[in-house]
Parts: sequence; C-alpha cells; structure tokens
Amino acid sequence: MNVKVEREDLERANAAAPFNAWARFTIQELSPGRCMLSLEWRPELAQYSGRLHAGVSAALLETSCGYAAVMQIGPNLVSQLSVSYVDAAVGERFASEARLIRGGRRQAFAEAKLFAERGGERKLTAVATAILLTVSPPTG
Amino acid sequence: MNVKVEREDLERANAAAPFNAWARFTIQELSPGRCMLSLEWRPELAQYSGRLHAGVSAALLETSCGYAAVMQIGPNLVSQLSVSYVDAAVGERFASEARLIRGGRRQAFAEAKLFAERGGERKLTAVATAILLTVSPPTG
Amino acid sequence: MNVKVEREDLERANAAAPFNAWARFTIQELSPGRCMLSLEWRPELAQYSGRLHAGVSAALLETSCGYAAVMQIGPNLVSQLSVSYVDAAVGERFASEARLIRGGRRQAFAEAKLFAERGGERKLTAVATAILLTVSPPTG
Amino acid sequence: MNVKVEREDLERANAAAPFNAWARFTIQELSPGRCMLSLEWRPELAQYSGRLHAGVSAALLETSCGYAAVMQIGPNLVSQLSVSYVDAAVGERFASEARLIRGGRRQAFAEAKLFAERGGERKLTAVATAILLTVSPPTG
Repeated sequence: MNVKVEREDLERANAAAPFNAWARFTIQELSPGRCMLSLEWRPELAQYSGRLHAGVSAALLETSCGYAAVMQIGPNLVSQLSVSYVDAAVGERFASEARLIRGGRRQAFAEAKLFAERGGERKLTAVATAILLTVSPPTG
Repeated sequence: MNVKVEREDLERANAAAPFNAWARFTIQELSPGRCMLSLEWRPELAQYSGRLHAGVSAALLETSCGYAAVMQIGPNLVSQLSVSYVDAAVGERFASEARLIRGGRRQAFAEAKLFAERGGERKLTAVATAILLTVSPPTG
Repeated sequence: MNVKVEREDLERANAAAPFNAWARFTIQELSPGRCMLSLEWRPELAQYSGRLHAGVSAALLETSCGYAAVMQIGPNLVSQLSVSYVDAAVGERFASEARLIRGGRRQAFAEAKLFAERGGERKLTAVATAILLTVSPPTG
Repeated sequence: MNVKVEREDLERANAAAPFNAWARFTIQELSPGRCMLSLEWRPELAQYSGRLHAGVSAALLETSCGYAAVMQIGPNLVSQLSVSYVDAAVGERFASEARLIRGGRRQAFAEAKLFAERGGERKLTAVATAILLTVSPPTG
C-alpha cells in the first residue's frame, strides 16, 4: 500500500530539495526506521549570537525524522514537531539521529537527537519528537 | 534588571544574524510583547515538494517569538518550541505573528501563528508555542 | 461523512466517562469549534505542593480540545498534546477554553487556555495545542 | 546548592500528594536521573471509550519525569510537557519510564515512555518530553 522508497531515491530527493541542498544536509545512515543526517558547520547557519540557528536545528531534526519514516510509510509531511533545546548548539559538525517510534497507515511518530561534534567530542544539543503524515506521491 | 532593547538594536541584530539575513526575515511590526516577521517566498526555501521547508517555518516562528519577548526580558534563547503544521505552506509571502504570553525573570512563554499570503488571501499554515530563556548580554 | 454529535450527546458522554466524572469536568459552553470546560477546585486534585496537578490541567485542556472538535469531526482521540505551564495553578475554580484551529478529514488541530479563578480574578495558568484524530464510532 | 532528596523522601511526598494517591502512582524504580512509575488499571481512570484517560497518561509521564530529575535538581515543577499518543492506552497495568536528558541549575530536561502491559505483553502507548524548573523548598 505504501510507496517503496529506496536510499537512492531519497538521496536524489534530498539533493533536489532546495533548502536541504543549501544547508547541505547529508544522509549518513539510512535503514528502515532509522536515519542519521549530518551538517557541517559554516557561519551562514548562525543566529545572532553565533550558534546554529534554532530553526536550522529544527530543520535537521524534522528532516531526519521524515527520512526515518520514509522507508516504512513512504513520502510524508510533518504535522507536529516539538523540540527541546538542551544545550548550546556550537560545534564543527552536527548530526541528527532519528528513529521511528511507530508507523501506521495514516501517520508515523518519530524522535530524533541532535549532537554537536567538536574536536572528537560529542554533545547532545536538542531532542525532538515529530508526527509525520503519509502523502500520496505526485502522479505522472 | 533586564537589558533594554530598542527596535533599532533588534533591526541591527536581525540584519547581522547570518541565517536571518540569508532567509531575509524582515521585522514588520514590533512592540512590547508583539512581533510580526515577514518572509518573501523564493524557491531556495523549499523542501522536496516545493513548499516552504518545515524548518524554515520553525525558524520564522521561533525568531518572531524571541523578538516578541526581547523588549520585556532582553536577549533570549529558545528552550522549547512546539509547532503544529495545520495547512500547506504555499504562498507568495509568509508572516509570523508572535505574542508574549507571559514574561518572567527566568523565562518567557510566547505563541506565534504563521500565515501564507497569496493573491490577497491569507491562510494559517502553522501555530507554535515557545519558551525563551533570558541570557546575559555579551560583554564588551 | 462525520458523525453528528449534539450537545446532549456530549453531556451524556462526559457524564459517562469515569475520569471526567470523578474530576467533575463540566461543560460550560459548547458551539462548533469552541468549548469551555470548568472544574471546581478540591484538594483531591492536588500534586505534592497543593497546586492543581499538572496532569489534571493536561486532562482538562485535552478534553476541552476534543470537545471543541467533536461537532465538526465527530468522536476523536488525541494524538499529540503540548502544554506550557505559565503560572501557578492555584484557584477556586479552573476553566479551559478551547478553540478548533483547523478541522480536516483525518485530523483536527485545537488550542486551549487554562485559567484559574479566585475572588473574582482570573489568571492564565497554562496553554496547550492538541492534535485530534477522528475515530469511527462504536457500532451497535 | 540543590536540595538533597532521598527515595524515602520521595515515597513520602508521592504518598502525600492527593492526586497521585488517588490514582495510585507507585514508585517502582528510582535512581539519579531515572524513575519508573507504575499504575494498575481500574475503570475509574478511563475516558469515554474505556481507555486510560489521556490526562492520566500525561500525569503519569509528567510525574515520572519530575521524579527522574528530583535527585539531581531537587524539588521541581513542570514548565512544558509534550506528549505523543502513539497507540491505544489499554492494559492491566501501565509503567512510565523516565530519564533525565540534561539537568542544569535552572531547569532540567527529561523524557519518558509509557507502556501498557497485558498478559505478559508490553506495548508502547505514549512518549513525552518535559521541562522541569527547580523550585525553592518550602521553609519551616
């Protein structure tokens, strides 16, 4: 019933998504119900005090949740996203690890953790939960 | 006790914030406890299916909440953001209207609504609540 | 397509719901897309420090959201609830005012505000957003 | 700086909290940063269709988060709670497992998972994130 999505389809969709391409979201790991996205720090991604913008953190968390769900429920759109910002988003590289909690016919629940990496150290900076709704694929 | 922030200070901070400048967040209205930010649509802001990226919606909502709080609690950082995506984020222009719910010494609560505008019509696309924590201003 | 629910049906369902009856949730106002529920304070509803238990606040907020949606989408179950506790939940009476933000075929979005009343004064204590999913009515 | 809370203190506080006592929240496990609370099903806890009331789920999740934080940050109050209801809350017994994500001086972040147990099976029914604020202990 759901649309089958392979990693190469998702790589292509991710590369074609303008904001994802601008921000340079990179698919590091992908398996059914799991996704790890990474993002190299660069100054364009900052808010006023030089940290990763909370909206970019949210974008990375949300995107990784959608990708974690895509192999099981197909193309999806986020319906709800809750993010807790637990520590300063400062690092050389960020990685969001998402996990599908439950996938149904109409919606899926996922959670993700965002880590900042710097000098071999890794620090949790945000956690999120997301609800994804299945969408019909574009026809033609 | 709190840092006094005037509109011109915030305009300057907004223009100097790299992500805000790239996305082109524009302060339309600002008063104590209120802020309206706008964003002109352009294709770079899209996710895979051509809508405004959920993370950019989140960024606009969160930023407007922070600005709504800034005149009362001073410079702040988001601690929690919950976004409900209620309709397709498609439009020529987006506006996020934020309102301070309660501002205290340690934290403030705000809410925001995101509207998509197209051809004179205005549609609610997302609602958010945010918790902002006061920060000490950078010295020097 | 949706199940038609009248106020008397909802009054009956509310009275028959065991937790609602124990807590004494009372429907004060009901119209399509709106609901106001009240709750008289009594000590059994307290957490450890004598305030209204955060879970009871959540229950009242969630229930009012579901009722605000019921006339438009029929019987529903909550899928997501986010609550911000903005002030101490202390009062003689509590009232949760819920409003449908958007009702669709599969899900509805609602928001609610919880007020504590005491000696003629009214204070906002919590705000919530909820996602409600339509359910098929029990048959037979 | 923080108030030292031992398990026996928390057992006493939990037993003295009227709503917790009525619902019969039981501390099963407690260690710094971890808490597991259980709740035996009984019909008084139901919403209109016979499941555990979403507000009681929220109460159990929130309480377990607060207890997970109490050994590290002392007495606390919830400031934000987000709950995703992922499956039907039907069972003979419920258990909420909470974990401190990060504890600071002013606030702590926790997450919890609620399981329904029935006939030796265990099913995830809800997940939550919470923000807890430290409070000064009552004096005298």
